[in-house]
Amino acid sequence: MTRKKIIGVIGAGSCDDRIYHIAEEMGRRIAKSGAALICGGLGGVMEAASKGAKEAGGLTIGILPGFDKADANSYIDIPIVTGLSHARNVLVVRSSDIVIAIAGGYGTLSEIALSLKMGKTVIGIETWEGVDDIIRVKNPDEAMERIKEFTG
Amino acid sequence: MTRKKIIGVIGAGSCDDRIYHIAEEMGRRIAKSGAALICGGLGGVMEAASKGAKEAGGLTIGILPGFDKADANSYIDIPIVTGLSHARNVLVVRSSDIVIAIAGGYGTLSEIALSLKMGKTVIGIETWEGVDDIIRVKNPDEAMERIKEFTG
Amino acid sequence: MTRKKIIGVIGAGSCDDRIYHIAEEMGRRIAKSGAALICGGLGGVMEAASKGAKEAGGLTIGILPGFDKADANSYIDIPIVTGLSHARNVLVVRSSDIVIAIAGGYGTLSEIALSLKMGKTVIGIETWEGVDDIIRVKNPDEAMERIKEFTG
Amino acid sequence: MTRKKIIGVIGAGSCDDRIYHIAEEMGRRIAKSGAALICGGLGGVMEAASKGAKEAGGLTIGILPGFDKADANSYIDIPIVTGLSHARNVLVVRSSDIVIAIAGGYGTLSEIALSLKMGKTVIGIETWEGVDDIIRVKNPDEAMERIKEFTG
Repeated sequence: MTRKKIIGVIGAGSCDDRIYHIAEEMGRRIAKSGAALICGGLGGVMEAASKGAKEAGGLTIGILPGFDKADANSYIDIPIVTGLSHARNVLVVRSSDIVIAIAGGYGTLSEIALSLKMGKTVIGIETWEGVDDIIRVKNPDEAMERIKEFTG
Repeated sequence: MTRKKIIGVIGAGSCDDRIYHIAEEMGRRIAKSGAALICGGLGGVMEAASKGAKEAGGLTIGILPGFDKADANSYIDIPIVTGLSHARNVLVVRSSDIVIAIAGGYGTLSEIALSLKMGKTVIGIETWEGVDDIIRVKNPDEAMERIKEFTG
Repeated sequence: MTRKKIIGVIGAGSCDDRIYHIAEEMGRRIAKSGAALICGGLGGVMEAASKGAKEAGGLTIGILPGFDKADANSYIDIPIVTGLSHARNVLVVRSSDIVIAIAGGYGTLSEIALSLKMGKTVIGIETWEGVDDIIRVKNPDEAMERIKEFTG
Repeated sequence: MTRKKIIGVIGAGSCDDRIYHIAEEMGRRIAKSGAALICGGLGGVMEAASKGAKEAGGLTIGILPGFDKADANSYIDIPIVTGLSHARNVLVVRSSDIVIAIAGGYGTLSEIALSLKMGKTVIGIETWEGVDDIIRVKNPDEAMERIKEFTG
């Protein structure tokens, strides 16, 4: 059996249109590469990436912090309901073969740090400065190139 | 968007052939009903149900206690890697629309209790005695009838 | 350095007067033995045991499911705020050298099962039937005898 | 009842002598202020802060990632055994009235980010650059002044 790769997209629960479009394009590219998308399942960057992936025929997994699968955005196929609040961040990144950070606030920063603590590769688009180990790219196109490099 | 129902199968990580066959048939029936299967992702009843579901063309999700997706049995499509040890039991049942317990040890009993604490329906096949709220059935056939009743 | 033993008391968040008095006496006896008490930090049996322990000069630890230390009952010295909901049950028993179950509902049953899964000794007073490995005692007095036997 | 304040100290599991002495002094000052210390319970900055607090007569709580209270450093009074790996970081900061970051790696950065996500005050000594909301101080002395300001 060959499992799909699972690629994580992390980012804030609300974002402006420009970041939304970047995340949507990122989701689309992930789906087209044949990988599944995992994210925190809520709005903003998470919703945008899920939307892009879903519209390109991909599979989307949302690791929800709360108690109800109805919290998931409309593009999540598989809502995992944790009831763990922010501790669910650990699961998003631990289940990812590689992590893509798009912009983001403190939740995203915690996920970047947890990823790097676990030794996972983090690719960043317009995300937190001051974290040297993030591999910085300009757009989803470049991100896909680096993903191929790291996950084969 | 209509999401697949997600049906949880809980049971021990090792089991005899008879229980294995019951769990496999249960997985098959879940997949044929169009629902996804969620379980703890390891061996025994979890493997059997995943095998049955996978062979019937279903989607299988494994909520793993450890740190490596390689811990998942061969029939898991989506390994969720938690690193939470037994605390992952909470996630298996919280993400299930309905829970089916097949035989099982103390891990399974914890999941039955957590399910009932959360107000979820638990259907049991040859599982723990002494828990009155379990809906007891004789086989996967009867289980499917009760599942339809509860999840529509 | 010799650390205090930590003894867990598990039971429902509400209970009748008779059970409350048993749990209070249990807490008192734990404190008098020099051990710290750990529990889920809320009402009912948890409050009663904390009250008994506190009034006998003991140290009380409450592993809270929610987000606010104000959720702790008035007799908790050390509120651990988890935000993990029912997953905090795992921590209560994992941090206990020995677990005492007093009556209880499904939350308590989940903690009994998790304790036994982890290989911990569970002493029960008027608690769940049908779980053979619980060491059943009639009252806090007998419980203390068994605790001494198991934890020295 | 008036509970002790609980002050979190976060930092790496190994550190050089200079940072060790700062963390030890920080722990001492926390204990002298009458607050309890909470930390991740392991070595490095966690051990140093626990040592300082313990030697000044304070109470020390360690939220351990693993499965055995023997993992706790020698200065921990109350080991909370979580089995949650990095997800225990969430509990360290959620249980803190205020968080003090001393130097630190990616684990510490995740705790800083989680603290700020939860709206907690983070005081930093020689810690991560690039996180604007950290209140930066030069030494434990200055940290105590800011703690008084924030927690009364």
